[in-house]
Amino acid sequence: MKIILDAMGGDNAPAAVVEGGIKAAADLGVTPVFVGDKDAIARHIGDSKAEYEIVHTTEAISGTCDATAAVKMKDSSMMKGMYMLRDGLGDAFISAGNTGALTAGATLIVKRIKGIRRVALSTVLPCKKRPCLLLDVGSNADCTPDFLLQFAIMGSCYMNGMYTDKATVGLLNIGTEPTKGNQLAQAAYELLSQSDAIDFRGNIEGRDIIEGDVDVLVADGFTGNITLKAIEGMGLYFNGALKGMLLKNAITKLAALAIKGGLTSFKKSFDYSEYGGAPILGASKVVFKAHGSSNARAFYNAIKAAKTFHDKNVISKIANNITR
Amino acid sequence: MKIILDAMGGDNAPAAVVEGGIKAAADLGVTPVFVGDKDAIARHIGDSKAEYEIVHTTEAISGTCDATAAVKMKDSSMMKGMYMLRDGLGDAFISAGNTGALTAGATLIVKRIKGIRRVALSTVLPCKKRPCLLLDVGSNADCTPDFLLQFAIMGSCYMNGMYTDKATVGLLNIGTEPTKGNQLAQAAYELLSQSDAIDFRGNIEGRDIIEGDVDVLVADGFTGNITLKAIEGMGLYFNGALKGMLLKNAITKLAALAIKGGLTSFKKSFDYSEYGGAPILGASKVVFKAHGSSNARAFYNAIKAAKTFHDKNVISKIANNITR
Repeated sequence: MKIILDAMGGDNAPAAVVEGGIKAAADLGVTPVFVGDKDAIARHIGDSKAEYEIVHTTEAISGTCDATAAVKMKDSSMMKGMYMLRDGLGDAFISAGNTGALTAGATLIVKRIKGIRRVALSTVLPCKKRPCLLLDVGSNADCTPDFLLQFAIMGSCYMNGMYTDKATVGLLNIGTEPTKGNQLAQAAYELLSQSDAIDFRGNIEGRDIIEGDVDVLVADGFTGNITLKAIEGMGLYFNGALKGMLLKNAITKLAALAIKGGLTSFKKSFDYSEYGGAPILGASKVVFKAHGSSNARAFYNAIKAAKTFHDKNVISKIANNITR
Repeated sequence: MKIILDAMGGDNAPAAVVEGGIKAAADLGVTPVFVGDKDAIARHIGDSKAEYEIVHTTEAISGTCDATAAVKMKDSSMMKGMYMLRDGLGDAFISAGNTGALTAGATLIVKRIKGIRRVALSTVLPCKKRPCLLLDVGSNADCTPDFLLQFAIMGSCYMNGMYTDKATVGLLNIGTEPTKGNQLAQAAYELLSQSDAIDFRGNIEGRDIIEGDVDVLVADGFTGNITLKAIEGMGLYFNGALKGMLLKNAITKLAALAIKGGLTSFKKSFDYSEYGGAPILGASKVVFKAHGSSNARAFYNAIKAAKTFHDKNVISKIANNITR
């Protein structure tokens, strides 16, 4: 199995991409295909005996590049990688680069699964009871109710096999009653509750996201993005405040030692690198988005997740459920 | 100055309402008017010599009561209080009860300021740099761009005088560029940037809410509600996790003692009871919503905030800015 990697995408590229890819080659038996500046990549390969490939490109898409302009950069590491995926030169593509460019490329180069109206950006949230896939988190700022139904179906297919075998679905809303919400949420509630392709459990309020009562949480991309980022912002804030408290003086540093075990497992429970990445759902081949600040471990886990995604035939399951 | 208090609203009613009201009578020189079951209220008055009034009512609106049904309960403590406010029997009304019922009553009984299209529910978020008023947080699930402009104007009038004298406004959005967002946010951005009634500073992303870069953060009620509740949920979660870590065993309890000072000031920085309540902006008289779980201290602070709201003539400022 060949995993195409955008070696130039993300804050720690190419070092983290190469390191994570080489480790995956050794441990998971996949062949990483590094796309990007060949010299920069080679510098980080080290003396590994693992099998790998390098495809040289001269351009890289910046984080601020407009998606429409980015898609035209055919010799960028990201778009080149997606053309290679389209042409069967690999089984999956992973990038930690510009998210808008990646979803645009997934739609225009890799193309959507037949019947899928919009690809969705998703993210696995670590919650109390279970990991929860939140989607859409920013690809589709304006949605119709049937987009949300497709998100629910795609999310269920993904979570089934990845983390569970009976994925449940919730709708992010401002109250638990079926009549709550804006017009979109009300119409989506009706569609979701009528579908036999999903196991719909009703509305989930903002306060209860963290509980992890469902495996898939559906939202329009505007609400989903703001909610996700608000949660991330709070996490960073608490982390910083806690650090400030614990590093204040010699006594608080002793206190930090005393609760070290608890702190480590708490942080681990919120570590995005455990999940590695999240799929661009609706693309006709495996396209994965790794977090922009991914380290080698996160890339390794993204490769692992992409491999499972591929092995579990999630894409054909989505195709079957959409046409059903 | 008379402050009408819904003595039956909130988780800790009537004890917390009465205690907070009596303290405000002593400290702030206001006269609390307790509306609710006279015997239950009297039991909590104690031997205070402060001036107060009691208006007896027989009904109370439950937390789950539908807003339309609630407004018809004219002898409920909440609606009775709003009729009294309308009829000039007090200068402000505060309730910790059913939010939907309160906004419905503010619209139908107290009535809106001339020119205001929708009342908005707001909340003061404690942020890093300054308190930030987020609105709407749930009154208006579907909004038009001009609702959002009115929210921005009302929020600015409120924050000016309450916490600052040059309130700045941000729009909650999925990116910082003017072209980002759903159709509503894009249109609202244009309206907000053209208005000379506010000091608009552009889009604020979910991750940056906690920074407190603006005094007023505008959102439709669907997004605002979900964001607010997601933030609250994360706060509760972190608090619980921290408690778990610190109360694990004798050694971690010692650690808790060592960081006690830091913990207390951290918690205080996030204590809603410091702000007491948030106004129903757009109502033609002072209507305040206190948090459902308000304690006596929160009621006291709500009364203090309502008094300032009244003294600073926020409502006539809103009226002037809206017709301008």
